[in-house]
Amino acid sequence: MKIGFVGLGSMGSAIAANLIRAGHQVRVWNRSPGPIGELVDLGATAAASARDALHGDVLFSMLADDAAVRSVFVDGGALRHATTGLIHVNLATVSIRLAGELTELHETLGLRYVAAPVFGRPDAARSGQLNIVAAGDAGALEQLQSLFDVIGQKTWKLGDAPLRANAVKISGNFMIAAAIEAMAEATTLAQAHGVSSAELLDILTSTLFASPVYKGYGTLIAEQRFSPPGFALRLGLKDVRLALEAGDTRHVPLPLASLLRDSLLEAVASGDGELDWAALAKVAQRRAGLDAA
Amino acid sequence: MKIGFVGLGSMGSAIAANLIRAGHQVRVWNRSPGPIGELVDLGATAAASARDALHGDVLFSMLADDAAVRSVFVDGGALRHATTGLIHVNLATVSIRLAGELTELHETLGLRYVAAPVFGRPDAARSGQLNIVAAGDAGALEQLQSLFDVIGQKTWKLGDAPLRANAVKISGNFMIAAAIEAMAEATTLAQAHGVSSAELLDILTSTLFASPVYKGYGTLIAEQRFSPPGFALRLGLKDVRLALEAGDTRHVPLPLASLLRDSLLEAVASGDGELDWAALAKVAQRRAGLDAA
Amino acid sequence: MKIGFVGLGSMGSAIAANLIRAGHQVRVWNRSPGPIGELVDLGATAAASARDALHGDVLFSMLADDAAVRSVFVDGGALRHATTGLIHVNLATVSIRLAGELTELHETLGLRYVAAPVFGRPDAARSGQLNIVAAGDAGALEQLQSLFDVIGQKTWKLGDAPLRANAVKISGNFMIAAAIEAMAEATTLAQAHGVSSAELLDILTSTLFASPVYKGYGTLIAEQRFSPPGFALRLGLKDVRLALEAGDTRHVPLPLASLLRDSLLEAVASGDGELDWAALAKVAQRRAGLDAA
Amino acid sequence: MKIGFVGLGSMGSAIAANLIRAGHQVRVWNRSPGPIGELVDLGATAAASARDALHGDVLFSMLADDAAVRSVFVDGGALRHATTGLIHVNLATVSIRLAGELTELHETLGLRYVAAPVFGRPDAARSGQLNIVAAGDAGALEQLQSLFDVIGQKTWKLGDAPLRANAVKISGNFMIAAAIEAMAEATTLAQAHGVSSAELLDILTSTLFASPVYKGYGTLIAEQRFSPPGFALRLGLKDVRLALEAGDTRHVPLPLASLLRDSLLEAVASGDGELDWAALAKVAQRRAGLDAA
Repeated sequence: MKIGFVGLGSMGSAIAANLIRAGHQVRVWNRSPGPIGELVDLGATAAASARDALHGDVLFSMLADDAAVRSVFVDGGALRHATTGLIHVNLATVSIRLAGELTELHETLGLRYVAAPVFGRPDAARSGQLNIVAAGDAGALEQLQSLFDVIGQKTWKLGDAPLRANAVKISGNFMIAAAIEAMAEATTLAQAHGVSSAELLDILTSTLFASPVYKGYGTLIAEQRFSPPGFALRLGLKDVRLALEAGDTRHVPLPLASLLRDSLLEAVASGDGELDWAALAKVAQRRAGLDAA
Repeated sequence: MKIGFVGLGSMGSAIAANLIRAGHQVRVWNRSPGPIGELVDLGATAAASARDALHGDVLFSMLADDAAVRSVFVDGGALRHATTGLIHVNLATVSIRLAGELTELHETLGLRYVAAPVFGRPDAARSGQLNIVAAGDAGALEQLQSLFDVIGQKTWKLGDAPLRANAVKISGNFMIAAAIEAMAEATTLAQAHGVSSAELLDILTSTLFASPVYKGYGTLIAEQRFSPPGFALRLGLKDVRLALEAGDTRHVPLPLASLLRDSLLEAVASGDGELDWAALAKVAQRRAGLDAA
Repeated sequence: MKIGFVGLGSMGSAIAANLIRAGHQVRVWNRSPGPIGELVDLGATAAASARDALHGDVLFSMLADDAAVRSVFVDGGALRHATTGLIHVNLATVSIRLAGELTELHETLGLRYVAAPVFGRPDAARSGQLNIVAAGDAGALEQLQSLFDVIGQKTWKLGDAPLRANAVKISGNFMIAAAIEAMAEATTLAQAHGVSSAELLDILTSTLFASPVYKGYGTLIAEQRFSPPGFALRLGLKDVRLALEAGDTRHVPLPLASLLRDSLLEAVASGDGELDWAALAKVAQRRAGLDAA
Repeated sequence: MKIGFVGLGSMGSAIAANLIRAGHQVRVWNRSPGPIGELVDLGATAAASARDALHGDVLFSMLADDAAVRSVFVDGGALRHATTGLIHVNLATVSIRLAGELTELHETLGLRYVAAPVFGRPDAARSGQLNIVAAGDAGALEQLQSLFDVIGQKTWKLGDAPLRANAVKISGNFMIAAAIEAMAEATTLAQAHGVSSAELLDILTSTLFASPVYKGYGTLIAEQRFSPPGFALRLGLKDVRLALEAGDTRHVPLPLASLLRDSLLEAVASGDGELDWAALAKVAQRRAGLDAA
């Protein structure tokens, strides 16, 4: 298939590379040209602009946040130049509000919009092991399945309304943050009574909590290894804000998300915004006066 | 071995039954005589009093809370009548403070005290699949291993100081409560955007959160099945109080535990104290005005 | 002076009326024409549009929120038609971000922008007893003083940067919300031990807390009198959001504001958004199961 | 009258001195003998023991906390030696649970128990300007009125049940802590936007919040003057715990009290337990990264 790909951060580049390797014709574009060369070496074509990437069968985009998506696709009117019938697959974690706006905008322009946020860190993207949560037009989803099979281990389909996929992604990221905070506080409590984080988490993540999130972040916490970040804390803050905003519009109080926001803000204020968000553990320790140890 | 067993609730009875079936001589006692008959049928002897259960090699106790432990073992002075060298294995979830007091008391009386709180619900107790977190005298732990192998799938040893086992148990239960609250809020958020709890949790507990705690409580939440309780909400509140108390004595702020306490209190105030603590989901829904649906 | 006045809700109308009574020539405009007639009867002129109100010496505006301010002054470009040198006095509670944008926009257009949010309910507006927190160009503030003296009991000057006045207003409203929540929880606690809200608040608001905020909202809580609202709960939620947003941009965690947001959302979800925000007391009572009484 | 007085900290000494100056015969006792000399110089008699102070018409006690009260009056059985008909006036802030126990104990022994916790710092105690919240037997309250008039500016009577007075005191102290936290967060927010604490609090505590609590603690916060403490932060933590405990027994969730507990614990963990509890402001600033400024 002819594929456009916009947004080549560590996640986007890894996904685009897999599409290229699977034999698709991929036109890539990124605001900063850095990542483009490597993909061209793999066989991609460099698009001259975002607009120039909108002329294939499918457009994938993986941009950093709502502002980047608005800037590339909404503000400049780039989508008006897209090939009719194009399927736009938005892999990014965006707000539910923006998902609704984009759905409407694409419909107006005769394009098809699929929300397909993914769970998985860059290494999962590289190995094609992402979990893809997809929602949008059923026909489009069917056409996309062979592509999804290239980039992910499983596609979870959530029906016609794209924003439902974003609701799942936002809820899932909120649950990850909650799991980190729970481990942050629990390990601090245990530590205060002479049990190391490693001892506690070894037991719990081998038994009741034997799952990727707890094992992965548990290891980072036990080893106090927060850099380089798998997922930067300031991006985690962005995602918790998305959960709070999604709650706010429907009058859903989320006290746990509020707590996470305050802890993440405290981490950013102390200069830890670029660490992995497992560094919530540092906040819990500092509050207990155990950080100097 | 000659074993005394005090405290025959659903957990205690199931554990005692496994010890009997393994061929040990077990003298059982319980405040209310109800559960004694069934164990006698399996081969146990009925002790005339708690004190009468203190004359074997090992005493197991599985009492409801600190107050029950104090009432049976501390206040009346029953332990003064125990056989010298007796190993007391306390399976219950008690406070770190009480663990410290009991350690000292047994030492004074020439007895050995092992804290061995367990992770697992009654069905795991029945099938001998508990996870046992044990701390105390190394020699005692060695002697106990064959018994632990009868009642649990694995024993996690935490060294000499009994209270370290309690710190792990309390931290672990706190993490379970946090996981339930996270699912409670996340499913309410998703629901407000048209995604059912079952849809959300099916995805998340098959992937990132594929662990017993999330799968088990996730199913209860998705099915709104809170009765009969596997673990009653009011007992969960008790355990969160233990975490807060353990934090308080060491000046460890635990904002997530505070939040849990307030949500659990709210559930009890609304009459749900005897439901499974997965009923935290009802609190989140009510706060969002989604409970009438 | 020749004055334009845009935004004639209960606060705006009361303030405009005082300016008219003081002998000024006031051109008034409001999106819905309802409140205009009464002011015309007092001597005002009806402006044909918001733009038509921008031709005097001073423009006062008192619009509901950021969105209304943007819609009237920013989006349509109305300010480009203002008389050069016009002083725009924004009495409304707007975000710090918008205050910054408006400051820049007015400067670009050769206009002067003064932020002058007020403390006081409609009755204080009617009696000219508002507290005015003003910041902006020193010369403009001097020119405005005689007008401020008509509408308020005191003007608190905060220097050149308009957004500093908004920071004070937002912080102050946050403190009011916090006071209400404190009374809400404290009266519920007392009530659970047999002390009525009236007994508790009579003592405290006559002594340690003898101030307008506590006396005023304390009376509403003691009498459970939440309608008609002096200040609607959903507007209080808007203001707490402004505090959280102002904190977020500077990485200031505000756990108390987060708590207020969640409680206010819960109140809105239960249908109480149009009650006075003293109805936070209902939330506290419901959580404790004391609302049916 | 013949008065016994037990507990001579800064509050107790000041109150006892006023009773002596008013011409009463006062027998004083304190665990550490330090403060006794000064009162003897004023005309008091030194009691040989707490028990020795129980032989007058009235016994006042002002002990630090529940543990001290239990130790002096409950554990040793001292009250059994009191003169029949003695009125025991407990001025201290104790738990509602202990208030109930003491009520019962005195009744059993033929003594009269009055709870009379006071609002006011040591300077108010010295000048006889305390606010006294009293509950207990009506006849006893009548007999005590002339004494209350010596030590306080006003007595607030709350009926027969002593614990109602404690409920008011605990609720009031909780509200003070909440006011401090609100100022702590609000001043940090303002500061982050260039408004000093002094500027903000000068406006607010002269207008909406013009009350002793806000003026007093506001001054400490604006001047960052936390030592010597008027009321030590660790005692504030004790009082917030009393509120939480009082809520817990009646299933009253108190999220604001939970938040206060966590902030106070954080302050203690950072070594600020002996500062005035206005030092909550330091916690808010540190969380925002503004403490180094």
